Amino acid sequence: MRERELLQRIAERSADLGAAFPGVLVGPGDDCAVLAGDPRPLLLTVDHLVQGRHFDDALPLDLVGRKAVARSVSDIAAMAGRPAWALATALLPAGWPHADELFGHMADAARAFGCPLVGGDVASHAGDGPLTLTVTAGGHPVGERPVLRSGANAGDSVYATGRFGGSPVAHRHARFDPRVEEAAALAGLATAMIDASDGLGVDAGRIAEASGATIELDAATIPVHPDARDLDAALGDGEDYELVFTAPDAATVPEAIFGTPITRIGLVVERGEHACVVVLPGGARRNASDLGFEHG
Amino acid sequence: MRERELLQRIAERSADLGAAFPGVLVGPGDDCAVLAGDPRPLLLTVDHLVQGRHFDDALPLDLVGRKAVARSVSDIAAMAGRPAWALATALLPAGWPHADELFGHMADAARAFGCPLVGGDVASHAGDGPLTLTVTAGGHPVGERPVLRSGANAGDSVYATGRFGGSPVAHRHARFDPRVEEAAALAGLATAMIDASDGLGVDAGRIAEASGATIELDAATIPVHPDARDLDAALGDGEDYELVFTAPDAATVPEAIFGTPITRIGLVVERGEHACVVVLPGGARRNASDLGFEHG
Repeated sequence: MRERELLQRIAERSADLGAAFPGVLVGPGDDCAVLAGDPRPLLLTVDHLVQGRHFDDALPLDLVGRKAVARSVSDIAAMAGRPAWALATALLPAGWPHADELFGHMADAARAFGCPLVGGDVASHAGDGPLTLTVTAGGHPVGERPVLRSGANAGDSVYATGRFGGSPVAHRHARFDPRVEEAAALAGLATAMIDASDGLGVDAGRIAEASGATIELDAATIPVHPDARDLDAALGDGEDYELVFTAPDAATVPEAIFGTPITRIGLVVERGEHACVVVLPGGARRNASDLGFEHG
Repeated sequence: MRERELLQRIAERSADLGAAFPGVLVGPGDDCAVLAGDPRPLLLTVDHLVQGRHFDDALPLDLVGRKAVARSVSDIAAMAGRPAWALATALLPAGWPHADELFGHMADAARAFGCPLVGGDVASHAGDGPLTLTVTAGGHPVGERPVLRSGANAGDSVYATGRFGGSPVAHRHARFDPRVEEAAALAGLATAMIDASDGLGVDAGRIAEASGATIELDAATIPVHPDARDLDAALGDGEDYELVFTAPDAATVPEAIFGTPITRIGLVVERGEHACVVVLPGGARRNASDLGFEHG
């Protein structure tokens, strides 16, 4: 069973969670879980960072620690939230001498992102195995309600922050700034939002699926990063950690927020596909929901 | 650097967290972190469950999933709290066919413990490596304040729920019932509390260290489990997940709570050791703070 099917099964199994546990406003399947809170809902997320999967041995330790935290912060941002605290786990190679240094980097990064590490757990491999970190982050929506993946409406425009593709170049996949402030500025405006970690095509497709609509991206407007090989790389490389969001067509979406460019890249339409489709110059349509990266 | 030293370094690095982040009431170093909340504080904990470390291949999958959740629930109980939600991560052996079954067991266990799985993350090993689960649990203290490790006073008596030692026999280490209700009943009574996961000696020593006192256990009174080899096994096997707590000597501590026996096993005294000492029949004293199990 592939990761996507597993996540699908988890979501199915959780479909009745809200009925059994009324405090659960959003269960598995969005960037964060949402729990009822007074005065503000609680946003919760957890992410892996696995050696050989999410980073290689060439990545300096400070960037390993930073990326572990930043991935979870980006999930909180994707709900138009701000992070408040974090917990970390580390499963270390046997006899690994760099644990204290790594934990220092993680603690520094977490404080800088506004979500101090308040607890965690440490274990060591008995045999072979990769350095494995997890970071759980909690936070709160900036507005009254978080922005979910499921709120896109036919007629909304689709936007993205920044540029896409080529994230492995110069370790950009580990140096990104989670778009917390940009997302906060969009809190009253965006109808649906996600952080593009697995690829623009896959992640825009997730908004489409959750919203029961189709997203048509205009290939000519997609902001391709200079590091990206081509349009396919922009759609599928992943690890951009940019925001992809929808807003009513008549809304006044700024061209930039705090210096981060915002580009209109497509439209939400009523079609049966419930996926992300790229419309190429000339009009050919191509399903982009599969042009992504499964971290595995 | 051993696990204990690493945890010590993490605690040192976090000593000023409360000053920088006023919402952090208790940072790394207790069973849970405690964050300010309205009306009730938020308790947070995360634990690993690593194949070959915390369970072996003979453990049935339902007990693997249950143990992963129960370990974190036990940490919430140790603060006299009740769990409310959980997040899980799973790092799977490549091509492992049992993931969906395992996740079903974890979801069932979490619901049964009152802390439904509201989110998580799944990844697969690129090469060799053990099945690794983490469960983050959040909850709230039953009373106004949680019971910390640091509240023991000289003159308090020391108590324990249940019996100790031999937890590997018949997979007892994976079948235990976290002492949530017992701890709730002790919320107004206990001055300090911990769940004995690493060993009665080590964990009682942690109360002593955090409280700046010494705990003297009376060897003759320690409730040794019939599965335990001897007193050393009771002190050091670990994975009992019983509560060890202190209460004023004059307090009326019941002999049992919901059928779980409570035994008076020692005394908090003012001495320089700040450790757990076992007093043997005849009066010999033996430091038991090292008689424990480092999961690594």
